[in-house]
Amino acid sequence: MRTAFYISDGTAITSEVFGHATLSMFPVDFNHKTIPFVETVDKAEKIKDLINETAVTSGEKPLVFFTFVNPVLSDIILASDGVCYDFLSYSSEIVKRELKVAPVPKVHRTHSIHEATYDFRIDAVNYALANDDGANVKDYEKADIILVGVSRSGKTPTSLYLALQYGIKAANYPMTEDDLEKGTLPKCLTAFKHKIFGLTIDPERLSAIRQERMANSRYASIRQCRIEVREVEMLFKKNRIPYLNSTKFSVEEISAKIMSETNLERRKY
Amino acid sequence: MRTAFYISDGTAITSEVFGHATLSMFPVDFNHKTIPFVETVDKAEKIKDLINETAVTSGEKPLVFFTFVNPVLSDIILASDGVCYDFLSYSSEIVKRELKVAPVPKVHRTHSIHEATYDFRIDAVNYALANDDGANVKDYEKADIILVGVSRSGKTPTSLYLALQYGIKAANYPMTEDDLEKGTLPKCLTAFKHKIFGLTIDPERLSAIRQERMANSRYASIRQCRIEVREVEMLFKKNRIPYLNSTKFSVEEISAKIMSETNLERRKY
Repeated sequence: MRTAFYISDGTAITSEVFGHATLSMFPVDFNHKTIPFVETVDKAEKIKDLINETAVTSGEKPLVFFTFVNPVLSDIILASDGVCYDFLSYSSEIVKRELKVAPVPKVHRTHSIHEATYDFRIDAVNYALANDDGANVKDYEKADIILVGVSRSGKTPTSLYLALQYGIKAANYPMTEDDLEKGTLPKCLTAFKHKIFGLTIDPERLSAIRQERMANSRYASIRQCRIEVREVEMLFKKNRIPYLNSTKFSVEEISAKIMSETNLERRKY
Repeated sequence: MRTAFYISDGTAITSEVFGHATLSMFPVDFNHKTIPFVETVDKAEKIKDLINETAVTSGEKPLVFFTFVNPVLSDIILASDGVCYDFLSYSSEIVKRELKVAPVPKVHRTHSIHEATYDFRIDAVNYALANDDGANVKDYEKADIILVGVSRSGKTPTSLYLALQYGIKAANYPMTEDDLEKGTLPKCLTAFKHKIFGLTIDPERLSAIRQERMANSRYASIRQCRIEVREVEMLFKKNRIPYLNSTKFSVEEISAKIMSETNLERRKY
Protein backbone atom coordinates (compact mmCIF):
# COMPACT_ATOMS: atom_id res chain seq x y z
CA MET A 1 0.00 0.00 0.00
CA ARG A 2 1.20 3.50 -0.73
CA THR A 3 2.14 5.64 2.27
CA ALA A 4 1.10 9.26 2.84
CA PHE A 5 3.11 11.37 5.29
CA TYR A 6 1.77 14.46 7.05
CA ILE A 7 4.68 16.38 8.55
CA SER A 8 5.14 19.70 10.33
CA ASP A 9 7.05 21.56 13.03
CA GLY A 10 3.74 22.01 14.91
CA THR A 11 0.81 19.66 15.53
CA ALA A 12 0.64 18.66 11.82
CA ILE A 13 -3.15 19.07 12.07
CA THR A 14 -3.19 21.36 9.02
CA SER A 15 -1.07 18.87 7.04
CA GLU A 16 -3.44 16.05 8.03
CA VAL A 17 -6.61 17.93 7.13
CA PHE A 18 -5.23 19.20 3.83
CA GLY A 19 -3.56 15.94 2.80
CA HIS A 20 -6.59 13.90 3.77
CA ALA A 21 -8.91 16.21 1.81
CA THR A 22 -6.70 15.84 -1.26
CA LEU A 23 -6.29 12.06 -1.04
CA SER A 24 -9.97 11.43 -0.28
CA MET A 25 -10.69 12.47 -3.88
CA PHE A 26 -8.89 9.35 -5.14
CA PRO A 27 -10.21 5.77 -5.06
CA VAL A 28 -6.96 4.50 -3.52
CA ASP A 29 -6.14 3.26 -0.03
CA PHE A 30 -3.26 4.79 1.85
CA ASN A 31 -1.21 4.01 4.88
CA HIS A 32 -1.37 7.34 6.76
CA LYS A 33 1.57 8.53 8.89
CA THR A 34 1.44 11.80 10.83
CA ILE A 35 4.69 13.17 12.23
CA PRO A 36 4.26 16.35 14.30
CA PHE A 37 6.85 18.53 16.09
CA VAL A 38 9.73 18.02 13.65
CA GLU A 39 11.67 20.96 15.04
CA THR A 40 15.35 20.08 14.55
CA VAL A 41 17.67 19.27 11.65
CA ASP A 42 18.39 15.96 13.33
CA LYS A 43 14.74 14.96 13.46
CA ALA A 44 14.13 16.15 9.87
CA GLU A 45 17.06 14.00 8.65
CA LYS A 46 15.56 10.97 10.42
CA ILE A 47 12.20 11.60 8.74
CA LYS A 48 13.94 11.93 5.37
CA ASP A 49 15.56 8.53 5.97
CA LEU A 50 12.18 7.07 6.92
CA ILE A 51 10.60 8.41 3.71
CA ASN A 52 13.46 6.94 1.67
CA GLU A 53 13.22 3.56 3.41
CA THR A 54 9.45 3.50 2.82
CA ALA A 55 10.03 4.20 -0.88
CA VAL A 56 12.42 1.25 -1.07
CA THR A 57 10.41 -1.29 0.95
CA SER A 58 7.05 -0.46 -0.67
CA GLY A 59 8.50 0.09 -4.15
CA GLU A 60 6.39 3.27 -4.42
CA LYS A 61 7.20 6.89 -3.70
CA PRO A 62 5.36 8.07 -0.58
CA LEU A 63 3.22 11.21 -0.90
CA VAL A 64 4.44 13.86 1.52
CA PHE A 65 2.32 16.82 2.63
CA PHE A 66 4.42 19.12 4.78
CA THR A 67 4.81 22.61 6.15
CA PHE A 68 7.67 24.15 8.13
CA VAL A 69 8.48 27.64 9.30
CA ASN A 70 12.23 27.01 8.99
CA PRO A 71 13.28 26.63 5.31
CA VAL A 72 16.31 24.54 6.33
CA LEU A 73 13.91 21.82 7.51
CA SER A 74 11.77 22.12 4.36
CA ASP A 75 14.86 21.60 2.20
CA ILE A 76 15.76 18.38 4.02
CA ILE A 77 12.31 16.89 3.38
CA LEU A 78 12.32 18.16 -0.23
CA ALA A 79 15.58 16.23 -0.78
CA SER A 80 13.84 12.95 0.12
CA ASP A 81 12.58 10.40 -2.39
CA GLY A 82 8.93 11.23 -1.63
CA VAL A 83 6.54 13.21 -3.81
CA CYS A 84 6.73 16.31 -1.64
CA TYR A 85 4.16 19.07 -1.49
CA ASP A 86 4.90 22.15 0.63
CA PHE A 87 1.23 23.05 0.42
CA LEU A 88 1.22 26.44 2.18
CA SER A 89 4.01 27.98 0.12
CA TYR A 90 1.85 28.55 -2.97
CA SER A 91 -1.12 30.00 -1.09
CA SER A 92 1.11 32.29 0.95
CA GLU A 93 2.65 33.59 -2.30
CA ILE A 94 -0.83 34.53 -3.57
CA VAL A 95 -1.69 36.28 -0.32
CA LYS A 96 1.67 38.05 -0.20
CA ARG A 97 1.22 39.39 -3.74
CA GLU A 98 -2.24 40.65 -2.90
CA LEU A 99 -1.56 42.14 0.54
CA LYS A 100 1.91 43.41 -0.37
CA VAL A 101 2.98 42.34 3.12
CA ALA A 102 5.66 39.75 3.84
CA PRO A 103 4.74 36.73 5.95
CA VAL A 104 6.17 36.62 9.47
CA PRO A 105 7.27 33.05 10.09
CA LYS A 106 6.38 31.84 13.58
CA VAL A 107 6.45 28.27 14.84
CA HIS A 108 3.18 26.82 16.23
CA ARG A 109 1.23 29.62 14.61
CA THR A 110 -2.05 27.88 13.93
CA HIS A 111 -2.90 25.50 16.74
CA SER A 112 -1.22 27.02 19.77
CA ILE A 113 -2.47 28.27 23.12
CA HIS A 114 -1.54 31.81 22.09
CA GLU A 115 -4.58 32.34 19.94
CA ALA A 116 -6.61 35.16 21.47
CA THR A 117 -9.63 32.91 21.77
CA TYR A 118 -8.06 29.85 23.33
CA ASP A 119 -9.50 30.35 26.81
CA PHE A 120 -12.99 30.75 25.31
CA ARG A 121 -12.78 27.24 23.95
CA ILE A 122 -11.75 25.67 27.25
CA ASP A 123 -14.48 27.65 29.05
CA ALA A 124 -16.93 26.41 26.44
CA VAL A 125 -15.92 22.76 26.99
CA ASN A 126 -16.39 23.17 30.74
CA TYR A 127 -19.75 24.82 30.09
CA ALA A 128 -20.88 22.00 27.78
CA LEU A 129 -19.95 19.39 30.37
CA ALA A 130 -21.63 21.21 33.25
CA ASN A 131 -24.78 21.69 31.18
CA ASP A 132 -24.87 18.31 29.47
CA ASP A 133 -28.06 16.30 29.37
CA GLY A 134 -30.14 18.76 31.40
CA ALA A 135 -27.70 18.45 34.32
CA ASN A 136 -28.00 22.12 35.10
CA VAL A 137 -30.97 24.18 33.96
CA LYS A 138 -30.08 27.35 35.86
CA ASP A 139 -27.22 28.55 33.71
CA TYR A 140 -28.98 28.98 30.36
CA GLU A 141 -28.44 32.73 30.39
CA LYS A 142 -24.82 32.09 29.55
CA ALA A 143 -25.61 29.65 26.74
CA ASP A 144 -24.98 30.61 23.13
CA ILE A 145 -27.27 27.79 22.12
CA ILE A 146 -29.38 25.08 23.79
CA LEU A 147 -29.69 21.82 21.89
CA VAL A 148 -32.96 20.03 22.53
CA GLY A 149 -34.01 16.55 21.44
CA VAL A 150 -34.97 13.09 22.63
CA SER A 151 -32.43 10.88 24.38
CA ARG A 152 -29.65 9.70 21.99
CA SER A 153 -30.39 12.10 19.17
CA GLY A 154 -26.79 13.37 19.06
CA LYS A 155 -26.92 16.33 21.44
CA THR A 156 -23.85 15.60 23.55
CA PRO A 157 -21.19 15.03 20.85
CA THR A 158 -22.55 18.07 18.99
CA SER A 159 -22.33 20.28 22.12
CA LEU A 160 -18.76 19.18 22.69
CA TYR A 161 -17.75 19.72 19.08
CA LEU A 162 -19.28 23.21 19.06
CA ALA A 163 -17.31 23.99 22.22
CA LEU A 164 -13.95 22.54 21.21
CA GLN A 165 -13.95 23.74 17.60
CA TYR A 166 -15.83 27.00 17.72
CA GLY A 167 -15.75 28.18 21.34
CA ILE A 168 -19.56 28.08 21.42
CA LYS A 169 -21.25 27.56 24.81
CA ALA A 170 -23.78 24.84 24.03
CA ALA A 171 -26.07 23.44 26.72
CA ASN A 172 -28.24 20.47 25.92
CA TYR A 173 -31.57 19.33 27.29
CA PRO A 174 -33.13 15.90 26.75
CA MET A 175 -36.87 15.84 26.13
CA THR A 176 -38.24 13.05 28.30
CA GLU A 177 -41.49 11.20 27.84
CA ASP A 178 -43.01 13.36 30.59
CA ASP A 179 -41.96 16.55 28.84
CA LEU A 180 -43.34 15.28 25.54
CA GLU A 181 -46.70 14.21 27.00
CA LYS A 182 -47.33 17.75 28.18
CA GLY A 183 -46.86 18.93 24.59
CA THR A 184 -45.37 22.25 25.68
CA LEU A 185 -41.82 23.42 26.21
CA PRO A 186 -40.49 22.65 29.69
CA LYS A 187 -40.62 25.70 31.96
CA CYS A 188 -36.84 25.98 32.26
CA LEU A 189 -36.65 26.53 28.49
CA THR A 190 -39.47 28.97 27.79
CA ALA A 191 -37.46 32.09 28.57
CA PHE A 192 -34.69 30.92 26.25
CA LYS A 193 -36.75 29.90 23.24
CA HIS A 194 -34.66 32.10 20.94
CA LYS A 195 -31.56 30.06 21.83
CA ILE A 196 -33.06 26.63 21.25
CA PHE A 197 -32.04 24.44 18.34
CA GLY A 198 -33.73 21.07 17.86
CA LEU A 199 -32.12 17.79 16.89
CA THR A 200 -34.20 14.94 15.58
CA ILE A 201 -33.37 11.53 14.12
CA ASP A 202 -35.02 8.73 12.15
CA PRO A 203 -36.85 6.36 14.55
CA GLU A 204 -35.12 3.28 13.04
CA ARG A 205 -31.66 4.71 13.67
CA LEU A 206 -32.68 5.91 17.14
CA SER A 207 -33.95 2.47 18.03
CA ALA A 208 -30.70 0.86 16.86
CA ILE A 209 -28.61 3.27 18.94
CA ARG A 210 -30.77 2.76 22.04
CA GLN A 211 -30.74 -1.00 21.50
CA GLU A 212 -26.97 -0.99 21.98
CA ARG A 213 -27.34 0.65 25.37
CA MET A 214 -30.48 -1.09 26.67
CA ALA A 215 -31.26 -4.11 24.55
CA ASN A 216 -34.91 -5.17 24.31
CA SER A 217 -36.12 -2.32 26.50
CA ARG A 218 -39.25 -0.28 25.98
CA TYR A 219 -36.87 2.71 25.68
CA ALA A 220 -35.24 1.10 22.61
CA SER A 221 -38.41 -0.25 20.98
CA ILE A 222 -39.23 1.07 17.54
CA ARG A 223 -42.75 1.92 18.72
CA GLN A 224 -41.45 4.11 21.54
CA CYS A 225 -38.86 5.77 19.28
CA ARG A 226 -41.53 6.58 16.68
CA ILE A 227 -43.79 8.19 19.29
CA GLU A 228 -41.02 10.30 20.80
CA VAL A 229 -39.66 11.50 17.45
CA ARG A 230 -43.17 12.40 16.20
CA GLU A 231 -43.95 14.31 19.38
CA VAL A 232 -40.65 16.18 19.54
CA GLU A 233 -40.94 17.25 15.87
CA MET A 234 -44.50 18.49 16.50
CA LEU A 235 -43.21 20.50 19.44
CA PHE A 236 -40.44 22.05 17.33
CA LYS A 237 -42.93 23.01 14.62
CA LYS A 238 -45.51 24.40 17.03
CA ASN A 239 -42.90 26.59 18.69
CA ARG A 240 -41.12 27.51 15.44
CA ILE A 241 -37.88 26.09 16.74
CA PRO A 242 -35.33 25.47 13.97
CA TYR A 243 -34.33 21.83 13.84
CA LEU A 244 -32.25 19.34 11.95
CA ASN A 245 -32.50 15.60 11.33
CA SER A 246 -29.09 14.28 12.38
CA THR A 247 -29.45 10.75 10.98
CA LYS A 248 -27.26 11.09 7.92
CA PHE A 249 -24.83 13.69 9.16
CA SER A 250 -21.54 13.57 11.04
CA VAL A 251 -20.95 15.69 14.13
CA GLU A 252 -18.88 18.04 11.94
CA GLU A 253 -21.74 18.42 9.48
CA ILE A 254 -24.40 18.91 12.16
CA SER A 255 -22.22 21.52 13.86
CA ALA A 256 -21.45 23.36 10.61
CA LYS A 257 -25.16 23.41 9.71
CA ILE A 258 -26.11 24.76 13.14
CA MET A 259 -23.44 27.47 12.95
CA SER A 260 -24.64 28.46 9.52
CA GLU A 261 -28.38 28.45 10.31
CA THR A 262 -28.13 30.34 13.59
CA ASN A 263 -25.45 32.81 12.49
CA LEU A 264 -23.50 32.07 15.65
CA GLU A 265 -20.10 33.70 15.60
CA ARG A 266 -17.05 31.45 15.75
CA ARG A 267 -14.72 32.24 18.65
CA LYS A 268 -11.97 30.54 16.81
CA TYR A 269 -9.49 32.96 15.31
CA MET B 1 -10.72 45.37 7.58
CA ARG B 2 -10.08 42.87 4.81
CA THR B 3 -12.46 39.93 4.61
CA ALA B 4 -11.48 36.28 4.14
CA PHE B 5 -14.10 33.84 2.86
CA TYR B 6 -13.96 30.08 3.41
CA ILE B 7 -16.43 28.38 1.09
CA SER B 8 -17.36 24.83 0.17
CA ASP B 9 -20.17 22.45 -0.78
CA GLY B 10 -19.50 20.54 2.46
CA THR B 11 -18.72 21.68 6.02
CA ALA B 12 -16.00 24.11 4.79
CA ILE B 13 -13.81 22.80 7.63
CA THR B 14 -10.95 22.09 5.22
CA SER B 15 -11.26 25.59 3.73
CA GLU B 16 -11.21 27.12 7.20
CA VAL B 17 -8.20 25.13 8.39
CA PHE B 18 -6.23 25.74 5.20
CA GLY B 19 -7.17 29.41 4.83
CA HIS B 20 -6.51 30.14 8.47
CA ALA B 21 -3.12 28.40 8.32
CA THR B 22 -2.18 30.54 5.31
CA LEU B 23 -3.41 33.84 6.72
CA SER B 24 -1.93 33.27 10.18
CA MET B 25 1.51 33.74 8.55
CA PHE B 26 0.68 37.38 7.90
CA PRO B 27 0.63 40.21 10.47
CA VAL B 28 -2.78 41.38 9.26
CA ASP B 29 -6.23 41.17 10.87
CA PHE B 30 -9.07 39.66 8.91
CA ASN B 31 -12.82 39.52 9.12
CA HIS B 32 -13.42 35.76 8.73
CA LYS B 33 -16.56 34.46 6.98
CA THR B 34 -17.24 30.73 6.62
CA ILE B 35 -19.97 29.64 4.20
CA PRO B 36 -20.60 25.87 4.20
CA PHE B 37 -23.05 23.78 2.13
CA VAL B 38 -23.03 25.89 -1.03
CA GLU B 39 -24.61 23.15 -3.10
CA THR B 40 -26.64 24.93 -5.79
CA VAL B 41 -26.02 27.42 -8.59
CA ASP B 42 -28.47 29.75 -6.93
CA LYS B 43 -26.58 29.77 -3.65
CA ALA B 44 -23.22 30.11 -5.42
CA GLU B 45 -24.50 33.17 -7.31
CA LYS B 46 -25.63 34.75 -4.04
CA ILE B 47 -22.18 34.16 -2.54
CA LYS B 48 -20.57 35.71 -5.63
CA ASP B 49 -22.76 38.80 -5.12
CA LEU B 50 -21.76 38.91 -1.46
CA ILE B 51 -18.06 38.75 -2.36
CA ASN B 52 -18.53 41.55 -4.90
CA GLU B 53 -20.46 43.72 -2.43
CA THR B 54 -17.77 43.17 0.19
CA ALA B 55 -15.13 44.27 -2.34
CA VAL B 56 -17.08 47.49 -3.00
CA THR B 57 -17.98 48.40 0.59
CA SER B 58 -14.55 47.61 2.05
CA GLY B 59 -12.62 48.93 -0.96
CA GLU B 60 -10.43 45.80 -0.83
CA LYS B 61 -10.67 42.50 -2.65
CA PRO B 62 -11.69 39.72 -0.27
CA LEU B 63 -9.46 36.64 -0.11
CA VAL B 64 -11.47 33.55 -1.02
CA PHE B 65 -10.38 30.01 -0.13
CA PHE B 66 -12.78 27.54 -1.67
CA THR B 67 -13.31 23.99 -2.82
CA PHE B 68 -16.20 22.41 -4.73
CA VAL B 69 -16.81 19.03 -6.26
CA ASN B 70 -18.98 20.53 -9.02
CA PRO B 71 -16.88 22.68 -11.44
CA VAL B 72 -19.96 24.76 -12.36
CA LEU B 73 -20.02 26.09 -8.81
CA SER B 74 -16.25 26.71 -8.81
CA ASP B 75 -16.57 28.77 -11.99
CA ILE B 76 -19.22 31.03 -10.43
CA ILE B 77 -16.98 31.82 -7.46
CA LEU B 78 -13.93 32.27 -9.74
CA ALA B 79 -15.90 34.91 -11.67
CA SER B 80 -16.27 37.03 -8.51
CA ASP B 81 -14.14 40.07 -7.66
CA GLY B 82 -12.35 38.21 -4.86
CA VAL B 83 -8.81 36.86 -4.91
CA CYS B 84 -9.90 33.25 -5.33
CA TYR B 85 -7.85 30.21 -4.49
CA ASP B 86 -9.23 26.77 -5.33
CA PHE B 87 -6.66 25.26 -3.01
CA LEU B 88 -7.25 21.53 -3.61
CA SER B 89 -7.01 21.65 -7.39
CA TYR B 90 -3.23 22.02 -7.49
CA SER B 91 -2.55 19.29 -4.92
CA SER B 92 -4.95 16.90 -6.63
CA GLU B 93 -3.10 17.48 -9.91
CA ILE B 94 0.17 16.44 -8.27
CA VAL B 95 -1.40 13.32 -6.79
CA LYS B 96 -3.13 12.46 -10.06
CA ARG B 97 0.15 12.72 -11.98
CA GLU B 98 1.87 10.47 -9.47
CA LEU B 99 -0.85 7.84 -8.97
CA LYS B 100 -1.96 7.84 -12.61
CA VAL B 101 -5.51 7.54 -11.27
CA ALA B 102 -8.25 10.09 -11.89
CA PRO B 103 -9.98 11.66 -8.90
CA VAL B 104 -13.58 10.56 -8.23
CA PRO B 105 -15.51 13.67 -7.25
CA LYS B 106 -17.87 13.07 -4.36
CA VAL B 107 -19.68 15.65 -2.27
CA HIS B 108 -19.10 15.62 1.51
CA ARG B 109 -16.07 13.42 1.03
CA THR B 110 -13.94 14.53 3.95
CA HIS B 111 -16.09 15.24 6.97
CA SER B 112 -19.09 12.99 6.52
CA ILE B 113 -20.64 10.18 8.53
CA HIS B 114 -19.64 7.73 5.80
CA GLU B 115 -16.03 7.47 6.88
CA ALA B 116 -15.41 3.91 7.97
CA THR B 117 -14.29 5.09 11.38
CA TYR B 118 -17.09 7.47 12.23
CA ASP B 119 -18.76 5.23 14.81
CA PHE B 120 -15.44 4.75 16.58
CA ARG B 121 -15.30 8.45 17.25
CA ILE B 122 -18.80 8.65 18.71
CA ASP B 123 -18.10 5.56 20.84
CA ALA B 124 -14.89 7.20 21.98
CA VAL B 125 -16.73 10.39 23.01
CA ASN B 126 -19.22 8.35 25.02
CA TYR B 127 -16.34 6.43 26.59
CA ALA B 128 -14.51 9.65 27.52
CA LEU B 129 -17.64 11.06 29.16
CA ALA B 130 -18.43 7.87 31.08
CA ASN B 131 -14.83 7.63 32.30
CA ASP B 132 -14.21 11.30 33.00
CA ASP B 133 -12.65 12.41 36.25
CA GLY B 134 -12.42 8.93 37.75
CA ALA B 135 -16.19 8.51 37.44
CA ASN B 136 -15.80 4.88 36.48
CA VAL B 137 -12.69 2.91 37.34
CA LYS B 138 -13.98 -0.48 36.24
CA ASP B 139 -13.78 0.00 32.50
CA TYR B 140 -10.07 0.64 32.06
CA GLU B 141 -9.57 -2.53 30.06
CA LYS B 142 -11.26 -0.83 27.13
CA ALA B 143 -9.17 2.33 27.42
CA ASP B 144 -6.57 3.15 24.79
CA ILE B 145 -5.03 5.56 27.27
CA ILE B 146 -5.65 6.77 30.83
CA LEU B 147 -4.72 10.37 31.54
CA VAL B 148 -3.62 10.95 35.12
CA GLY B 149 -2.92 14.24 36.87
CA VAL B 150 -4.02 16.56 39.65
CA SER B 151 -7.39 18.30 39.48
CA ARG B 152 -7.48 20.97 36.71
CA SER B 153 -4.34 19.91 34.90
CA GLY B 154 -6.14 19.63 31.53
CA LYS B 155 -7.24 15.99 31.52
CA THR B 156 -10.89 16.42 30.48
CA PRO B 157 -10.53 18.64 27.39
CA THR B 158 -7.62 16.47 26.25
CA SER B 159 -9.66 13.25 26.66
CA LEU B 160 -12.51 14.74 24.64
CA TYR B 161 -10.24 16.03 21.90
CA LEU B 162 -8.51 12.64 21.59
CA ALA B 163 -11.96 11.03 21.26
CA LEU B 164 -13.52 13.49 18.81
CA GLN B 165 -10.50 13.98 16.58
CA TYR B 166 -8.75 10.64 16.69
CA GLY B 167 -11.32 8.09 17.89
CA ILE B 168 -9.09 7.30 20.88
CA LYS B 169 -10.78 5.96 24.04
CA ALA B 170 -9.25 8.11 26.75
CA ALA B 171 -10.24 7.71 30.40
CA ASN B 172 -8.98 10.18 32.94
CA TYR B 173 -8.27 9.85 36.63
CA PRO B 174 -7.66 12.75 39.03
CA MET B 175 -4.94 12.24 41.63
CA THR B 176 -6.38 13.48 44.91
CA GLU B 177 -4.47 14.59 47.96
CA ASP B 178 -5.19 11.20 49.54
CA ASP B 179 -3.79 9.36 46.53
CA LEU B 180 -0.71 11.57 46.54
CA GLU B 181 -0.03 11.15 50.26
CA LYS B 182 0.23 7.40 49.83
CA GLY B 183 2.95 7.98 47.26
CA THR B 184 1.94 4.95 45.21
CA LEU B 185 -0.36 4.47 42.24
CA PRO B 186 -4.02 3.97 43.22
CA LYS B 187 -5.01 0.29 43.13
CA CYS B 188 -7.44 0.73 40.26
CA LEU B 189 -4.56 1.91 38.06
CA THR B 190 -1.78 -0.57 38.86
CA ALA B 191 -2.91 -3.21 36.37
CA PHE B 192 -3.06 -0.58 33.61
CA LYS B 193 0.28 1.15 34.19
CA HIS B 194 1.25 0.65 30.55
CA LYS B 195 -1.73 2.75 29.44
CA ILE B 196 -1.13 5.68 31.78
CA PHE B 197 0.01 9.06 30.52
CA GLY B 198 0.64 11.86 33.01
CA LEU B 199 -0.29 15.50 32.70
CA THR B 200 1.33 18.09 34.87
CA ILE B 201 1.21 21.90 34.97
CA ASP B 202 3.11 24.83 36.49
CA PRO B 203 1.85 25.47 40.05
CA GLU B 204 1.30 29.18 39.32
CA ARG B 205 -0.98 28.45 36.35
CA LEU B 206 -2.77 25.69 38.30
CA SER B 207 -3.42 28.06 41.18
CA ALA B 208 -4.84 30.69 38.80
CA ILE B 209 -7.18 28.14 37.17
CA ARG B 210 -8.37 26.81 40.54
CA GLN B 211 -8.76 30.35 41.86
CA GLU B 212 -11.40 30.97 39.20
CA ARG B 213 -13.42 28.02 40.43
CA MET B 214 -12.91 28.30 44.18
CA ALA B 215 -11.49 31.68 45.04
CA ASN B 216 -9.32 31.90 48.17
CA SER B 217 -9.66 28.20 48.94
CA ARG B 218 -6.92 25.93 50.23
CA TYR B 219 -7.46 23.97 46.98
CA ALA B 220 -6.46 27.02 44.94
CA SER B 221 -3.60 28.21 47.16
CA ILE B 222 -0.18 28.33 45.56
CA ARG B 223 1.23 26.32 48.47
CA GLN B 224 -1.23 23.46 47.90
CA CYS B 225 -0.70 23.55 44.12
CA ARG B 226 3.10 23.36 44.57
CA ILE B 227 2.81 20.35 46.89
CA GLU B 228 0.43 18.45 44.57
CA VAL B 229 2.45 19.12 41.43
CA ARG B 230 5.71 18.10 43.11
CA GLU B 231 4.16 14.90 44.45
CA VAL B 232 2.48 13.91 41.19
CA GLU B 233 5.68 14.47 39.20
CA MET B 234 7.60 12.34 41.72
CA LEU B 235 5.03 9.60 41.29
CA PHE B 236 5.31 9.75 37.48
CA LYS B 237 9.11 9.52 37.69
CA LYS B 238 9.13 6.71 40.26
CA ASN B 239 6.74 4.64 38.10
CA ARG B 240 8.36 5.59 34.78
CA ILE B 241 5.09 7.01 33.53
CA PRO B 242 5.56 9.27 30.50
CA TYR B 243 4.27 12.76 31.21
CA LEU B 244 3.92 16.20 29.76
CA ASN B 245 3.72 19.69 31.24
CA SER B 246 0.57 21.15 29.69
CA THR B 247 1.08 24.77 30.80
CA LYS B 248 2.20 26.28 27.50
CA PHE B 249 0.32 23.99 25.13
CA SER B 250 -3.12 24.02 23.56
CA VAL B 251 -5.38 20.97 23.68
CA GLU B 252 -4.43 20.29 20.04
CA GLU B 253 -0.73 20.39 20.89
CA ILE B 254 -1.07 18.23 24.02
CA SER B 255 -3.12 15.68 22.05
CA ALA B 256 -0.70 15.62 19.12
CA LYS B 257 2.24 15.15 21.52
CA ILE B 258 0.50 12.29 23.33
CA MET B 259 -0.39 10.57 20.03
CA SER B 260 3.19 10.91 18.88
CA GLU B 261 4.84 9.75 22.14
CA THR B 262 2.58 6.76 22.73
CA ASN B 263 2.36 5.63 19.10
CA LEU B 264 -1.42 5.38 19.43
CA GLU B 265 -3.06 4.71 16.10
CA ARG B 266 -5.52 7.29 14.78
CA ARG B 267 -8.97 5.90 14.05
CA LYS B 268 -9.58 8.78 11.77
CA TYR B 269 -9.43 7.84 8.13
